Amino acid sequence: MRVIDGLGRGPTRREVLHTIGMIGGAATLYQMMTVMGHAAESQFTGPPNLSGARPGATVLVLGAGLAGMLAAYELGKAGYTVRILEYNNRPGGRNWSLYGGDTYTELGGATQKVGFAQGNYLNPGPWRIPYHHRTILHYCKAFGVALEPFIQLNHQALVHSSKAFGGKPQRYRELSSDFEGNVAELLGKAIDNKGLDSVMTAEDRDKLKMALREWGLLDKDMRYVKGRPSRRRGYERPPGGGVNAAPIPNEPFAFKDVMDSGIWRTVAQHMQTDHQTTMFQPVGGMGMIGKAFGRQVADKVRFGAKVTKIDQDAKGVTVTYTDVASGTVETATADYCVCTIPLGILSQIDVTASDALLNAIAAVPYSNSVKVGLEMKTRFWEEDEAIYGGISYTDQEIAQISYPSGGMHSSGPGVILGAYTFGPASYKFAGMTPEERVATALEQGAVFHPGKYKEQFSNGVAVAWSRVPFTLGCCAQWNEATRKQHYQTLCAVDNRLVLAGEHASYIGCWMEGALLSSLDAITRLHKRALEA
Amino acid sequence: MRVIDGLGRGPTRREVLHTIGMIGGAATLYQMMTVMGHAAESQFTGPPNLSGARPGATVLVLGAGLAGMLAAYELGKAGYTVRILEYNNRPGGRNWSLYGGDTYTELGGATQKVGFAQGNYLNPGPWRIPYHHRTILHYCKAFGVALEPFIQLNHQALVHSSKAFGGKPQRYRELSSDFEGNVAELLGKAIDNKGLDSVMTAEDRDKLKMALREWGLLDKDMRYVKGRPSRRRGYERPPGGGVNAAPIPNEPFAFKDVMDSGIWRTVAQHMQTDHQTTMFQPVGGMGMIGKAFGRQVADKVRFGAKVTKIDQDAKGVTVTYTDVASGTVETATADYCVCTIPLGILSQIDVTASDALLNAIAAVPYSNSVKVGLEMKTRFWEEDEAIYGGISYTDQEIAQISYPSGGMHSSGPGVILGAYTFGPASYKFAGMTPEERVATALEQGAVFHPGKYKEQFSNGVAVAWSRVPFTLGCCAQWNEATRKQHYQTLCAVDNRLVLAGEHASYIGCWMEGALLSSLDAITRLHKRALEA
Repeated sequence: MRVIDGLGRGPTRREVLHTIGMIGGAATLYQMMTVMGHAAESQFTGPPNLSGARPGATVLVLGAGLAGMLAAYELGKAGYTVRILEYNNRPGGRNWSLYGGDTYTELGGATQKVGFAQGNYLNPGPWRIPYHHRTILHYCKAFGVALEPFIQLNHQALVHSSKAFGGKPQRYRELSSDFEGNVAELLGKAIDNKGLDSVMTAEDRDKLKMALREWGLLDKDMRYVKGRPSRRRGYERPPGGGVNAAPIPNEPFAFKDVMDSGIWRTVAQHMQTDHQTTMFQPVGGMGMIGKAFGRQVADKVRFGAKVTKIDQDAKGVTVTYTDVASGTVETATADYCVCTIPLGILSQIDVTASDALLNAIAAVPYSNSVKVGLEMKTRFWEEDEAIYGGISYTDQEIAQISYPSGGMHSSGPGVILGAYTFGPASYKFAGMTPEERVATALEQGAVFHPGKYKEQFSNGVAVAWSRVPFTLGCCAQWNEATRKQHYQTLCAVDNRLVLAGEHASYIGCWMEGALLSSLDAITRLHKRALEA
Repeated sequence: MRVIDGLGRGPTRREVLHTIGMIGGAATLYQMMTVMGHAAESQFTGPPNLSGARPGATVLVLGAGLAGMLAAYELGKAGYTVRILEYNNRPGGRNWSLYGGDTYTELGGATQKVGFAQGNYLNPGPWRIPYHHRTILHYCKAFGVALEPFIQLNHQALVHSSKAFGGKPQRYRELSSDFEGNVAELLGKAIDNKGLDSVMTAEDRDKLKMALREWGLLDKDMRYVKGRPSRRRGYERPPGGGVNAAPIPNEPFAFKDVMDSGIWRTVAQHMQTDHQTTMFQPVGGMGMIGKAFGRQVADKVRFGAKVTKIDQDAKGVTVTYTDVASGTVETATADYCVCTIPLGILSQIDVTASDALLNAIAAVPYSNSVKVGLEMKTRFWEEDEAIYGGISYTDQEIAQISYPSGGMHSSGPGVILGAYTFGPASYKFAGMTPEERVATALEQGAVFHPGKYKEQFSNGVAVAWSRVPFTLGCCAQWNEATRKQHYQTLCAVDNRLVLAGEHASYIGCWMEGALLSSLDAITRLHKRALEA
């Protein structure tokens, strides 16, 4: 049994499971995990054990995003000679942070030079890591990436709906309290009106009413009224110290307004596994992960190489690429190829593969998304409003603004994520110049912090994923029909070629999906190589 | 107008409000805050502006806890000559962290030497700071205390009830999902059974049903059944990458079991303002705050001084104290006195004051609480179970265990708060030897992590507040009757003496209450001194 940390300790539960997985396969593994009393929170059971590559066997990896670099790293450990071809001049792919001084040119030619202060950044792509994404967390630890909490839910943040409260944003704590408090009161009333007599015993109805009273902060008559709810929604005048210290409760909102705000969507969103506590981000920007992976495969990567053709036959794989700087066309050969190029790009490349795989590559559209980073001269949201990290939501096109989870409670400038938009709005934003995107984000976001937002603005940067040259989109959008028809084909080893990336996973748009896809792809490729 | 950060920026909203507060008093201030569109989240409006003390005026401060040190700091800035008498040999009072190598002797004589590894600690007293505690946050920033997020709610943590699931702990995410999902389903059923026909229009009922479906993850027939809820409660087999990646949903619990678990109490607790996101803790232990305050008043504190008498007359205050090390009795005199000694101690001291104040001092009992720190050799809760920070709850005497929010995702030993108990159980724990407390905490906490908890245990320390020599209890326990009869008297300036501390606030048991009380007390004392 492998000992991870060299401290001579016994095997961890994770290691035991890893071994079981090796011996008995995934089905046995899941059975064992259930027997051991834990529902699995991840399909990751530890790094793969791929020893014993044939001497001299070679692999070409296309793309130095996380999937590609992990493939290169683990195949290298297994004994393969691995080379990576990467279009950009940096490792990481969509794992990427923009810092002050960085320059970014999008499709169409618009170039932005980032003006952020030292230490500030925008993560155009991934920006948060859920606790159950065990693969990315494992490799962050293994590769020395320092993490800090990412604040997703913030009770003090704001929710804005143009349809409620005359367009005035309200605190999440007030709206969520009032929604759930009213649900509790209404269910209590419905019970009294015999609405549940046919489904519950009298004893169970009484127990439920008691629970509703505590959960919904109802008064003794089961009403959600001014008083107790202030413990949750906040006070008109909060408790203090000394002679003038008694708190004054505030008045709950009218339920109609609470309903009009659509707050239940926000509440529901915070409870989904991908947004549950505790989430993480790397200290200093998400791009720290790409850089850390990059250090592990630094001797293997050829940057600035644009792949134009992937050919394979019974003997091997030949990849044609253009040196981006010089325009020179070159080729590279290997026994096998792991291709992590996003499908929207790959579908435009000449690939030798089965028709089924080519059809699968062409079948999956990519979503768009736009992110705008707005640097503010001061952290007024912390200093004036006690908002530390988290997200304020709006039904405007920007969808949300997010306050930085890094550097909280420090002084000086901070970068707000001023827009994170999907769907039609993201295409509208992509159609604007970067300057227009920044200006629009500033205009819409000002609803949350009037008198401060525009006044404290310093500079901004905007990334529209449909215009990102190396992806032409955000991430793969599967639906039930395409999954059924193409997913297994897309993942299968096609002669000497296997695809990997978030598009070859059920955790689409997340780094975890890219990594798990990569581990699965190279495990199967290794098996194929040993059998060949 | 004061410029806080020396950057030449304009006044912040907080500064404007501070100025309004100075001119018009608290009532005007709150009116203005409402006009400006923000309900106040704190009574703190910035540090006091107490300039102009009479030349040579002196103040004796009793106690170098946070209230005492803040009083000394701000009165010193106002021009008073201030001296602090402190029983302990360190600043901070209940703000206190125990580190490896520290020694602590409780009432009764039991001495514990802490065996924690470097960097690990237990906070016997305060351990978390809510976002709306603006005073403590302000002075942390002013005095250079680095903060990091404190994780309160953790969806992956466990909830144990001896009355449900045969005593097997379940994940918070599963129980909370199932409680709210069932509430949604039941309210939907009650609506269909005409239980709300008398209180809502048909249109509003339809809107509510739509909201319940999304909030409760109900299916199209408004049922909370296996499928959608896995987005929130987790999967039997989570989504993965590659060929074997499709998720398998898990089965919700029977509602009866969910009700028996009492989960609604835990859910409700996480929503109250004191536990809402974002919370903080100082990097390196809560005691960092006491140390930072201590540095600001280092030239003013006399440590190891046990106050035995507080006398006052028309001319001044005379305090008699014993030098703890030598037993020598000494006296100190001043024009005024700010006394922050906890009431349980103060009531045993000879104090010259009005009968009303002496009655108030004697009227308020203190709660007890016991905290146990358990150092574990590895962070198995993170490595094996993906629990990062947060709290697992139980209906056993220990009440809860809390995983460290500091050093998350690092390797090596970590300290779990293995018990944090109040009420009768805390007196039972206080009656045990420290070793018995640790052993009992270990025994009860093992329910959450069988096979790991006792096995990975390295060493522990236990603090029972009823046995802490400098407080004889945890914090003041007011009730409605004592508030009415004694609170204003307790806070009022009594000739030359004024009391301060969490006991003189409506934010009892919190550092914020101590600080706001202190600011209010010295503001009134200063006014009195100027009028004298």
